[in-house]
Amino acid sequence: MSLPDIRFSQRRHQASVQSIAYLMKQGLESRNVISLAAGFVDEVTLPVSLVREAIADILTDDPDGHSVLQYGTTAGLGPLRDNLLKHMARLEKCSATDLNVTTNEIVVTSGSQQLLQHLSDALFDPGDICLVAAPTYFVFLGTLNGVGARTIAVDTDENGMCMDALEAELTNIEQAGDLNRVKMIYLVSSFENPSGVTLVDDRRKQVVEIAKRWSKEQRILILEDAAYRELRYEGEDGPSIWINDETRQHVILAQTFSKSFSPGIRVAYGVLPRDLVPAIHDVKGNFDFGSPNLNQRIVSHAIQSGKYEQHVAGLQSSYRVKRDAMLTAADEFFSDLPGVSWLRPNGGLYVWMTLPDEIKTGFESPLFRHATKTENVMYVPGDIAYPKDSPLQKKCQMRLSFGVEAPDTIREGMRRLSQAVRHVM
Amino acid sequence: MSLPDIRFSQRRHQASVQSIAYLMKQGLESRNVISLAAGFVDEVTLPVSLVREAIADILTDDPDGHSVLQYGTTAGLGPLRDNLLKHMARLEKCSATDLNVTTNEIVVTSGSQQLLQHLSDALFDPGDICLVAAPTYFVFLGTLNGVGARTIAVDTDENGMCMDALEAELTNIEQAGDLNRVKMIYLVSSFENPSGVTLVDDRRKQVVEIAKRWSKEQRILILEDAAYRELRYEGEDGPSIWINDETRQHVILAQTFSKSFSPGIRVAYGVLPRDLVPAIHDVKGNFDFGSPNLNQRIVSHAIQSGKYEQHVAGLQSSYRVKRDAMLTAADEFFSDLPGVSWLRPNGGLYVWMTLPDEIKTGFESPLFRHATKTENVMYVPGDIAYPKDSPLQKKCQMRLSFGVEAPDTIREGMRRLSQAVRHVM
Repeated sequence: MSLPDIRFSQRRHQASVQSIAYLMKQGLESRNVISLAAGFVDEVTLPVSLVREAIADILTDDPDGHSVLQYGTTAGLGPLRDNLLKHMARLEKCSATDLNVTTNEIVVTSGSQQLLQHLSDALFDPGDICLVAAPTYFVFLGTLNGVGARTIAVDTDENGMCMDALEAELTNIEQAGDLNRVKMIYLVSSFENPSGVTLVDDRRKQVVEIAKRWSKEQRILILEDAAYRELRYEGEDGPSIWINDETRQHVILAQTFSKSFSPGIRVAYGVLPRDLVPAIHDVKGNFDFGSPNLNQRIVSHAIQSGKYEQHVAGLQSSYRVKRDAMLTAADEFFSDLPGVSWLRPNGGLYVWMTLPDEIKTGFESPLFRHATKTENVMYVPGDIAYPKDSPLQKKCQMRLSFGVEAPDTIREGMRRLSQAVRHVM
Repeated sequence: MSLPDIRFSQRRHQASVQSIAYLMKQGLESRNVISLAAGFVDEVTLPVSLVREAIADILTDDPDGHSVLQYGTTAGLGPLRDNLLKHMARLEKCSATDLNVTTNEIVVTSGSQQLLQHLSDALFDPGDICLVAAPTYFVFLGTLNGVGARTIAVDTDENGMCMDALEAELTNIEQAGDLNRVKMIYLVSSFENPSGVTLVDDRRKQVVEIAKRWSKEQRILILEDAAYRELRYEGEDGPSIWINDETRQHVILAQTFSKSFSPGIRVAYGVLPRDLVPAIHDVKGNFDFGSPNLNQRIVSHAIQSGKYEQHVAGLQSSYRVKRDAMLTAADEFFSDLPGVSWLRPNGGLYVWMTLPDEIKTGFESPLFRHATKTENVMYVPGDIAYPKDSPLQKKCQMRLSFGVEAPDTIREGMRRLSQAVRHVM
């Protein structure tokens, strides 16, 4: 008897091939390849002893210790959410009261990717629209694609998404009669993945004003993804987009401890407009009844003790050296190549490099094959960071991560990559 | 300026009010109420020292220790999946080779609820059909509802889902021209939540044969939810439904360590038909890039060291006492009440009690109000464990959990509950 096929859902067919999963697997398995690809953090800097100490304090034999291994609530651990308010106040340089939210508006998730997915589930019907920077975080493009959303790229420069271009796109959409389909503007506000670009302060104000003004048929939400905010190596951190919205009803703030603390613990959080909270609780409740208690207690303990803040200061020093190593190597190996340019990020994990138009960087390109097979160096092709068929898509860019490798290896990786580019040129 | 509404997705509207979330919140917050409701485990038995020791071994200062706090892969940690094969072989009383699967078919999830949700996403379009026992796990009914699936209840007795009733439902569905919409038969194979019923061995064979024979238009998958399998207090554990399918292509086996180890760690796993694996990887990749490494390492360590097996043996003794306390109290306080009956489970966490038809048990019923407000005892109303509007739905049943409370408190809870029932009678 032959085996009848499984008939999958429409959703499964929408879920595009997971470039990120492919890259992460490669990054973990091909240890002889220098990875300028994976958005992993540097393992050497992971807070092993901090977590060990936290667990020793938390996992006691008394009832409180036992509760660490019990179910929690869907919204997340109360004491963690209390600590998150203090943490947010420190980042915004204001008092917890001035944040003008309560812990009721905070939901803890297993990585911010989970929040991004829950928001997509709760908000987007097929054909609904999300506006994004060009380029933007490619994993979220996959998530949006998976729920059938239309993603429209907005022109972006070294100061982040261009506000006049955003207005122009909204005008186009309105003229096409689709303004009622616009649900969200997505912005990675600091050190965008992949471009390393930060949205400047005046645009943070403007985008809130634009979202409000264009909320003619329904609310247009801004999703501020601040995953890299604390990884700043230069300059002063300004206020979030979120705090520019005094109503607290237009901006969703997504934050994670994956980059600044540990991706293997998977604790993140969102701050939500009040009337979005029940929807996210319902969606998350269907998914997992809440994130693991143990992991939430570890992060809460680290914030409370002040050791998290110390840890982030250490990370900044360590990543600053690696960013500088990559930029120095770029100068050394790429500056004589005509038509090659790159951005100098003030934080995050990525340097964004543009080659001449005719040199394609995609997974199927001669450059990618030569780099990975002959030179043993890996990067992320830039084309995946644009919505498919966007007129803004470029195919000659690369995301280069200085997250994983040591400074010397970063230099060697950049040398190899320049060899591959020279070979193809 | 008034605040424009958020327009939610169709999915959000399908996501029903989360009874489970409500109950869990109540269970955690109302500490003066005796909870015979929450499906929580007994906090006293949680493996605090075991986890502490595991972490001390795992979270070392060497590179391997650091990797615990790094990202993992979507499929889950390799060494854990190796250990899961050995664990499964022990449960099935065969060699790992005789399981006839590889670690490639195993995916690690954050609780089995996550696997249930991912499967629903990958398989069900609105209107597709899932057949379930009556009664069945109400959280999964909510999940199915959330993706727009139709859920059809199948008559069930003290030996589990009735196979002739299953055949009859499939015949009805075929006559209605909907056989091509049947995607799944869902079965909690051991100590079903809420009924405590176990599917007997010959029905385990029959259901596989039925699923194969009715896979005329596409594959009808069986989802075997074995969450409570290891919580057996009486009798011999037989083979799973899964191992009865020699092709390994019709049954999905869902297993979790939430009940047998720790719900606060949230580690579970699924064994999937080979051609379902890429779909679940893609869906999970979009969700969270894989479950937390730390938690997976803890469980892997506990299995490897043999301490997990010892822990489960201890749990069985402890829960056996609590089950007996509940059954003894049922005899003591309920046996003189006309028309009241209950099942005696051999394992799991629940006693399923049926009252006379005219005594409604739902959230809005006089009994529920009297029990929770006056007698300070909480149960789960049985009606939520049937698909809405199913002709098999009864409204006079209660799920009574002996998971959380100590034996004396269970007895007191049962006394209070009998008072509430007497009051309403």
